[in-house]
Amino acid sequence: MTQPLQLPEATLARIVDSIRLTVHTRHLSPTHLPNTETIIRLLDELRALLFPGFFGSRTLTSESLSPHVQQAAERLAADLTRQIRAALAYMEGLDPAAGAAHAESCDAQAQRLALAFLDRLAEVRRLLALDVQAALDGDPAARHTDEIIFCYPGLRAMMVHRVAHELYRLGVPLLPRVMSEHAHAETGIDIHPGATIGESFFIDHGTGVVIGETTHIGRNCRLYQGVTLGARSFATDSAGRILRGEKRHPTLGDRVIVYASATILGGDTVIGNDCVIGGGVFLTRSVPPGHIVQATRPELRERPDPASSPFEWGGSGI
Amino acid sequence: MTQPLQLPEATLARIVDSIRLTVHTRHLSPTHLPNTETIIRLLDELRALLFPGFFGSRTLTSESLSPHVQQAAERLAADLTRQIRAALAYMEGLDPAAGAAHAESCDAQAQRLALAFLDRLAEVRRLLALDVQAALDGDPAARHTDEIIFCYPGLRAMMVHRVAHELYRLGVPLLPRVMSEHAHAETGIDIHPGATIGESFFIDHGTGVVIGETTHIGRNCRLYQGVTLGARSFATDSAGRILRGEKRHPTLGDRVIVYASATILGGDTVIGNDCVIGGGVFLTRSVPPGHIVQATRPELRERPDPASSPFEWGGSGI
Amino acid sequence: MTQPLQLPEATLARIVDSIRLTVHTRHLSPTHLPNTETIIRLLDELRALLFPGFFGSRTLTSESLSPHVQQAAERLAADLTRQIRAALAYMEGLDPAAGAAHAESCDAQAQRLALAFLDRLAEVRRLLALDVQAALDGDPAARHTDEIIFCYPGLRAMMVHRVAHELYRLGVPLLPRVMSEHAHAETGIDIHPGATIGESFFIDHGTGVVIGETTHIGRNCRLYQGVTLGARSFATDSAGRILRGEKRHPTLGDRVIVYASATILGGDTVIGNDCVIGGGVFLTRSVPPGHIVQATRPELRERPDPASSPFEWGGSGI
Repeated sequence: MTQPLQLPEATLARIVDSIRLTVHTRHLSPTHLPNTETIIRLLDELRALLFPGFFGSRTLTSESLSPHVQQAAERLAADLTRQIRAALAYMEGLDPAAGAAHAESCDAQAQRLALAFLDRLAEVRRLLALDVQAALDGDPAARHTDEIIFCYPGLRAMMVHRVAHELYRLGVPLLPRVMSEHAHAETGIDIHPGATIGESFFIDHGTGVVIGETTHIGRNCRLYQGVTLGARSFATDSAGRILRGEKRHPTLGDRVIVYASATILGGDTVIGNDCVIGGGVFLTRSVPPGHIVQATRPELRERPDPASSPFEWGGSGI
Repeated sequence: MTQPLQLPEATLARIVDSIRLTVHTRHLSPTHLPNTETIIRLLDELRALLFPGFFGSRTLTSESLSPHVQQAAERLAADLTRQIRAALAYMEGLDPAAGAAHAESCDAQAQRLALAFLDRLAEVRRLLALDVQAALDGDPAARHTDEIIFCYPGLRAMMVHRVAHELYRLGVPLLPRVMSEHAHAETGIDIHPGATIGESFFIDHGTGVVIGETTHIGRNCRLYQGVTLGARSFATDSAGRILRGEKRHPTLGDRVIVYASATILGGDTVIGNDCVIGGGVFLTRSVPPGHIVQATRPELRERPDPASSPFEWGGSGI
Repeated sequence: MTQPLQLPEATLARIVDSIRLTVHTRHLSPTHLPNTETIIRLLDELRALLFPGFFGSRTLTSESLSPHVQQAAERLAADLTRQIRAALAYMEGLDPAAGAAHAESCDAQAQRLALAFLDRLAEVRRLLALDVQAALDGDPAARHTDEIIFCYPGLRAMMVHRVAHELYRLGVPLLPRVMSEHAHAETGIDIHPGATIGESFFIDHGTGVVIGETTHIGRNCRLYQGVTLGARSFATDSAGRILRGEKRHPTLGDRVIVYASATILGGDTVIGNDCVIGGGVFLTRSVPPGHIVQATRPELRERPDPASSPFEWGGSGI
């Protein structure tokens, strides 16, 4: 065993400088930072609250359900309040002027927002029950609704989305996005908390799905894996800086189906009711109701040397 | 610090009602529920058993291999039996009539099924060794087979699939699907346990791959990331309910290669031996052996203002 | 409860044989194997070192930053040295001749390589700060740079890549690939450690992105989810074995944008400066600077029976 490694002072100094000289460093007291692990635990609590017996404790009976839900809801309210307060304090740290302008204390705001969220939870549960049924109706491989609640990534992503969307609508900073990125990491489905999604929505398989912040989706829609509902371009101000907050993502009517790896872009792109968009299509325009959009038929040609290996795609250069 | 948050009774009552009034709640005793964490641990045990020295204990020698494998196989048999029994009891809970019709007790069934699975494990190992070799042969970036076993998500997904498929064939409920969804979360590769996949199969990169329940894949095939082998449509009964259990997914012959983000749909879609399917293709028809399918050549046009930023895709409205 | 399961000796013997008879088994002493969990912990240390206050300890002040960074860098140097040594010893185990040919001991090599890596860390930090800014400039949904550092999977993948690429350039075996596959599992973004990526790079959403080993990307490029920069074919030697180490993946100039699910293949495929590649395009040829490549416009047709359900794609058979 040789000597332990000694870092040269010049190397250390350069590392310290590279970190100190840029803005991307936070020196904040720990009480003021929302905590990713805690936010993920919040989502687990929510899952156990919304689908008792599937997630969390498994010793429930019909009789113990009510006290169980009450306890779970109260614990959730307390934990959520703490995280909302941290997020509000954090944003004040970023922009003290905005914080000072606010008459309410972070404590009072956090309690008000947590309560408003809890007040929406019954509606969230109602929507999720419809999403479960939409998955059963839309997937012949599904045996029963239990399997969907237990294992379907599409439902898991929608559980997080319907929760994160309520927090987003209430103006809670940072938390909704941390939640949606956690669901993204778990499922490969990336739904911005701002997206508005109607009843009875089903994402099958789901890996690679992207649904942008200002997307509007009607009722009874179905998306497959790899579908993008994204921005076509960015509006800019006179200085060339991109504008945030514009409607940049598409609108889907009711009963729209989008097949795998299709990409639909643009804030004024409207896909009418009952449309079907084929796999792999790249669409930057609106489609009237009741239409099918499909890529032009691919070309078929004989493979000259099927026995020789490996296969080679033709050509290079323009 | 303000007062702790008090939830209004009406809010609580609405949450309880939203949960109580729908079917999506399980009140089952803990002994009767298969446990996701335990099933994931089962997969870890299986990996350590199938590839000793790579996963699990690292103090093996040639001499200690046999007793190690024996111990690992016996522990696996016991753990697997417990989980199969839980899954069988769970299904009986869902459908007591079907359970009662079964002459065998859950205990006896579980032992029989676990034993039948173990009896297939040598064959599973043989197939996985061929998959490792197929990855080395099919990926110039692979340095040696160790790297493939250590880190390739495609092999990780196939380890789980070849195991889950045996359990699926034996009729074990729920477990195979929990396993495959775990692999999906880990790798982005979603293979239904029912899919039949031949020898020497290689999925490169793999994120976004979907292989449906009734897919048949021949020998020496290769898929890239984002490939879908899916359903074209759902057969329905006279009441409009979708039929489950039909052949809905494609058949691939031997030595078929499918490039990234291609989508192939339909239970009667047959891709012949030695075919190559290009990236992004959307295919709902059969292809005779020895053919290449490729999207029509994309259009090339000059960008009017490469200096101006940001880029804007043309048009909106139809 | 029935008797515990007894595995038949023949079953056990077959399992042991299936494992013993193939090469895919490692019997190595534990000191000589790089450890996946430790490598992942190394990445956490690196994140906390590069973005203090965001990851790791949260009780930093301006004053405590320097000693914190120094401590973190020294701990990292020690841990990294150990893992590099394990990887070098492991490769010697695979190929003793190559090891013996090396004048330096594994210990001395490991120290030299860890030091060389630390010497590059300030530059890695500089590049990552530019990547953060590129994300803010390229995504109207981003509110501030903190959100990007906290939650953007594209930045997380680039943190790992810029680190793994330095180790790859130094010739450290195995570690870079374990790192990049961990980032792949976390983010769905698969960047081979060998890929060369210029300043101010942004991957938005990212699930399904694949960037191959010999890819070259210029400055200020932007990729969306599902984009593949891959190999068109494999060169083979006269015996038909694929050649490793050739330039197999594309070259992108500066300010290139590639939209979702596009696939670009080939080592001699060059995409010129300021090009824009449309979503879903499959491209195996070069494109001159300042051009737009877009799939031919998809076909639009009326859906005959929008009321009837479910939808059915036409035709089967060729």
